[in-house]
Amino acid sequence: MNFAPLQNDAFLRACRREHTAHTPVWLMRQAGRYLPEYCATRARAGSFMGLATNVNFATEVTLQPLERYPLDAAILFSDILTVPDAMGLGLSFAQGEGPRFASPVRDEAAVNRLAVPDLDKLRYVFDAVTSIRRALNGRVPLIGFSGSPWTLACYMVEGAGSDDYRLVKSMLYARPDLMHRILAINADAVAAYLNAQIDAGAQAVMVFDSWGGVLADGAFQDFSLAYTQRVLDKLKRTVPAIVFTKGGGAWLEDIAASGADVVGLDWTVNLRRARERVRDRVALQGNLDPMVLFGGEAAVRAEARRVLDDFGAGPGHVFNLGHGINQHTPPEAVTALVDEVHRHSRALRAVK
Amino acid sequence: MNFAPLQNDAFLRACRREHTAHTPVWLMRQAGRYLPEYCATRARAGSFMGLATNVNFATEVTLQPLERYPLDAAILFSDILTVPDAMGLGLSFAQGEGPRFASPVRDEAAVNRLAVPDLDKLRYVFDAVTSIRRALNGRVPLIGFSGSPWTLACYMVEGAGSDDYRLVKSMLYARPDLMHRILAINADAVAAYLNAQIDAGAQAVMVFDSWGGVLADGAFQDFSLAYTQRVLDKLKRTVPAIVFTKGGGAWLEDIAASGADVVGLDWTVNLRRARERVRDRVALQGNLDPMVLFGGEAAVRAEARRVLDDFGAGPGHVFNLGHGINQHTPPEAVTALVDEVHRHSRALRAVK
Repeated sequence: MNFAPLQNDAFLRACRREHTAHTPVWLMRQAGRYLPEYCATRARAGSFMGLATNVNFATEVTLQPLERYPLDAAILFSDILTVPDAMGLGLSFAQGEGPRFASPVRDEAAVNRLAVPDLDKLRYVFDAVTSIRRALNGRVPLIGFSGSPWTLACYMVEGAGSDDYRLVKSMLYARPDLMHRILAINADAVAAYLNAQIDAGAQAVMVFDSWGGVLADGAFQDFSLAYTQRVLDKLKRTVPAIVFTKGGGAWLEDIAASGADVVGLDWTVNLRRARERVRDRVALQGNLDPMVLFGGEAAVRAEARRVLDDFGAGPGHVFNLGHGINQHTPPEAVTALVDEVHRHSRALRAVK
Repeated sequence: MNFAPLQNDAFLRACRREHTAHTPVWLMRQAGRYLPEYCATRARAGSFMGLATNVNFATEVTLQPLERYPLDAAILFSDILTVPDAMGLGLSFAQGEGPRFASPVRDEAAVNRLAVPDLDKLRYVFDAVTSIRRALNGRVPLIGFSGSPWTLACYMVEGAGSDDYRLVKSMLYARPDLMHRILAINADAVAAYLNAQIDAGAQAVMVFDSWGGVLADGAFQDFSLAYTQRVLDKLKRTVPAIVFTKGGGAWLEDIAASGADVVGLDWTVNLRRARERVRDRVALQGNLDPMVLFGGEAAVRAEARRVLDDFGAGPGHVFNLGHGINQHTPPEAVTALVDEVHRHSRALRAVK
């Protein structure tokens, strides 16, 4: 496919730990409910899945935050659970609730029915990637993504979000053989899914291991990271791969050794210490607490500077939140945040 | 007060990092809903607060798990939120829900009304401590406890549990002066509360910083640990003090330097690495994932051995879960757990 040449490569350069004039910034869930224009499009689409499965709507909302803010990357508008939906588990989003699967995977018979889905069922995602890439017209790079094998398994077994992950962990400890079978299928499906996004035009891919941090030390390595690594091993490595394990700070060295180019961090991790731990093996992405955006402009700017100062002027930092932006965030707080990241990171490089 | 001499001092010796013949074990929330006898007593009491505020009921349920299992410590049956309740915020527990405050602290006027409560309003707690200590008759030591200043503030501002801590973090970032005033009052109240529990007979005290781990690096030190330290500085140090910050693994060295005798850890932390980080400054408590108890006896025993092996045979380990025991836990899983901790820790010492 022929796409317009890239005008702003700061994000891709930072992923490769190359020098940039400023620290690139994008925000997890930047196309989301805190934007009134997103809510308007979603109302027209009728439902979340109506939005995500329609190429025109998905393109429209992906570009909305770029119209407001000089962000350095776009991220595909989609959901982390599209793959198990394509496996036939029946994804839905009830109003005001999280995702729910009609057919959760709770026993050996259900595990036996699982298989890597026909990628044609996910054609709407790849079409959206290509459509967004064309609409971006080279402004900034486009990031594709998927949930991690373990995070998908959490939803597949629990059937919905969970406070304690009792069902999925019961299976993990009582029937590790079943859990490994689910995870192997998920890993192969995620790898194929991300490779198809890369073929469709994604210029980086991100694996969201949103629930890796609920696992015990040891279990994390065996049941989450091993399968994220299986994904990374099968990826076309023509584009950078980002791995984000929420609550995974304890395992930073392990994650950095998985083959990821960039490791995402939540706000509990100090970036200076994180950088000392991984040295120049990977770039780091993060890690402002999204709740800082409720503190008023002075706090937003001060806390953004703190994150930038902790990382320092060296290459290899992609600024982001440590989790998705909250739906109640005042949009003007993001204006201040993006401005401060660009302004202060340029100043840091000047005094270096 | 005169109490019977202590027959099993393994827990207190481990808190002081002295040699013990086996690794002592107790479980957070060991007197709880997973025990049918607890549910029967609670039904008689009518409500959670009816249970917690009645000395006879509180004594009865505190001793119930000791009748079933050879645990090495008892913990006062109470709630972490008794102190803000005594401040007049109106604590209640709706059926099937978590705690709720009738009068949350959301603005400067509400902060101005806060004060260290009259300890007479918490007399029922101190009476329960003395009653339980007498009923234990020296079998095992009794642990008293409180929520940490930050964790109390979370509930006081949010008014209930929260997914994102938006209200309390908004205050923290927008009005740090108000947050510091709440925390200073909480710290002085918690210190007085724990000292009164010690006077009433508590042989160790534990500060539950259940929500310290939701804070950003930097904010944790300033808004949680600094006030836990203020509590520790004011405590009568005649008994060991345990500090448990759920999700606080990143800050282990800081917590170990706070003056705590014992640091509690959740299951994301590897005990061998934790021990290398704190050396002989503090004992460590933890850290089995409570969900292991759903994996069947073989898994329970194997995972208990893994935790014990990670810590090693050296002194200074109190075995516990990394969080409160789940209400759906099969009681027989606890039988296997306590047996394996005692059996395997003796075996570890023999081969040392």
